[in-house]
Amino acid sequence: MRCVIFTGAGDNEVVEIVERPDALAGDEEVLVAVSHAGLNPADLSQRAGRYPAPPGFPADVPGLEVAGTVVACGSKVTRWRVGERVFGLVGGGGMAELVAVHERAVAPVPASLDAIGAAATPEAFITAHDAIRTRGRLAPGDTLLVHGASGGVGTAAIQIAVLAGARVLGTVRSDTAAGLVRSLGGEPVEDAGFAAAVDRLTEGRGADVILELVGAVHFPDNLAALATRGRIVIVGVGAGNATELSLLGMMQKRAELHGTVLRARPLEEKAAALRAFEREVLPGLVAGRLRPVVDSVYDVSDVRGAFDRLEGSGKSGKVLISFAP
Amino acid sequence: MRCVIFTGAGDNEVVEIVERPDALAGDEEVLVAVSHAGLNPADLSQRAGRYPAPPGFPADVPGLEVAGTVVACGSKVTRWRVGERVFGLVGGGGMAELVAVHERAVAPVPASLDAIGAAATPEAFITAHDAIRTRGRLAPGDTLLVHGASGGVGTAAIQIAVLAGARVLGTVRSDTAAGLVRSLGGEPVEDAGFAAAVDRLTEGRGADVILELVGAVHFPDNLAALATRGRIVIVGVGAGNATELSLLGMMQKRAELHGTVLRARPLEEKAAALRAFEREVLPGLVAGRLRPVVDSVYDVSDVRGAFDRLEGSGKSGKVLISFAP
Repeated sequence: MRCVIFTGAGDNEVVEIVERPDALAGDEEVLVAVSHAGLNPADLSQRAGRYPAPPGFPADVPGLEVAGTVVACGSKVTRWRVGERVFGLVGGGGMAELVAVHERAVAPVPASLDAIGAAATPEAFITAHDAIRTRGRLAPGDTLLVHGASGGVGTAAIQIAVLAGARVLGTVRSDTAAGLVRSLGGEPVEDAGFAAAVDRLTEGRGADVILELVGAVHFPDNLAALATRGRIVIVGVGAGNATELSLLGMMQKRAELHGTVLRARPLEEKAAALRAFEREVLPGLVAGRLRPVVDSVYDVSDVRGAFDRLEGSGKSGKVLISFAP
Repeated sequence: MRCVIFTGAGDNEVVEIVERPDALAGDEEVLVAVSHAGLNPADLSQRAGRYPAPPGFPADVPGLEVAGTVVACGSKVTRWRVGERVFGLVGGGGMAELVAVHERAVAPVPASLDAIGAAATPEAFITAHDAIRTRGRLAPGDTLLVHGASGGVGTAAIQIAVLAGARVLGTVRSDTAAGLVRSLGGEPVEDAGFAAAVDRLTEGRGADVILELVGAVHFPDNLAALATRGRIVIVGVGAGNATELSLLGMMQKRAELHGTVLRARPLEEKAAALRAFEREVLPGLVAGRLRPVVDSVYDVSDVRGAFDRLEGSGKSGKVLISFAP
């Protein structure tokens, strides 16, 4: 099978495409034939040597998600048959033509999604759903503020929140991003001075949940933009890690700050996130009310170009690579 | 009735004792005759002019808790009769011989507590319980780390956590405090270098819940001392408000940081905290397995001395004033 590997730590010079022996399904695993694979910011951290794969996953093959067709089932698999389409999460090794994944870490792909749509879905929608619903407890009538609204997780979060009866504000830095946020049912807000805009738009109430996909640059304004009893959920820190925080401000708003990441979770917690995704997100995908946003698809031979696109600004949704002929 | 007032913002020079017209019970309130009243760090903030009373409570009479005997009931009161002993929370006005309080913001005083024990209980035990159980979700088998272990809330938290089947570590700065923590079922830990001690004592696992009653001085070590998926609950910031926080560190531990305060809550949330206290804490008080720790009782004529004691170091439990003849 072909797969993408990192030959060491660095930038694109460590990215190669190689032939490896085909992956094999363990007893409780399905083997998935992959035509398209999604890239994620965490892959960039791994490329830089800052985010090694957890034990039990290929150490040098990036890729945190999988979508495709089951081509083999381990002896103890009960949920799936050969020929069914599945998608889900892996701790690494997703950028390969064959991926072995635990049967409880995948969900069924709805007929509404083609191969590209399926590949663009799992990490974005599971991460967004876990962050805003499971961690942030977003409820109908709440206001969600999304920082990083035009990426894969951001575009998924806007749609999930709108479908859940929430109002969604998304910070943007361009007219293109503003149009994207609007097209998904959200309200674009200028990134510069967002706290004042949120205050005005919510008539002083603030956002009940803030999804932070960008980083420390939005602090301390995030606390200013938060409603009493609001929840800030940190999923990405590409634009800054260390921030000054007012503990008294946290007390006065009775605020919650949650850090979260999917990759490092043990199987049972990943599986729980998949079941929650099946329950609350999959019906919206089946009905076509939720749709993954695809920025671009690169042939695997140009995977370095895909990484450049992922790293740059101005994306609208997911960046994918294709193994298809 | 006699009451303590703040004549302005400052230190003890603004503290006076005056005669005021007797408080009156509103329709849904009980009027409580008070013999002893508890002091809290929040009273010091109010004295300094930084923490005004919420609307609906006396603006210049401090005191956030009440314990005593019902001497009158409003026309719509259903839970209480004259002569019953109650304790609970008020948004202000607690340092008076008569206090009107909503009937749902008080709970019954167990026979096991005398007037001093009753006065030392509500704010300490309700705050501690709300912080470690309702916010921190402390469970049997968890490890709780308490910063500020020898004060009113700290001594209550240690006991509530031990009774709930948790292991309790409490940071201390003196042998007296260490003895107090030990006598309540906790394990004292030197405040200096506590993160390394927690790491050693928990064999690298860390604390599941950290109750922060002191402030920013314990950051960033609090994050280092926290277990994966742990919760830090901020209740006091007397020793520092602003702290630098690693958002990536929050993500890697999938940590939660909660700010909380009781005083600013609306009636329904205060009442909910009282009901949770009745359910989970009151049985332990009735059985004598939980006991308020009293540092000192000052006659109301020496209320300035009581404030000095509250502000100083080396306390063991609650500081009270007495209106008794």
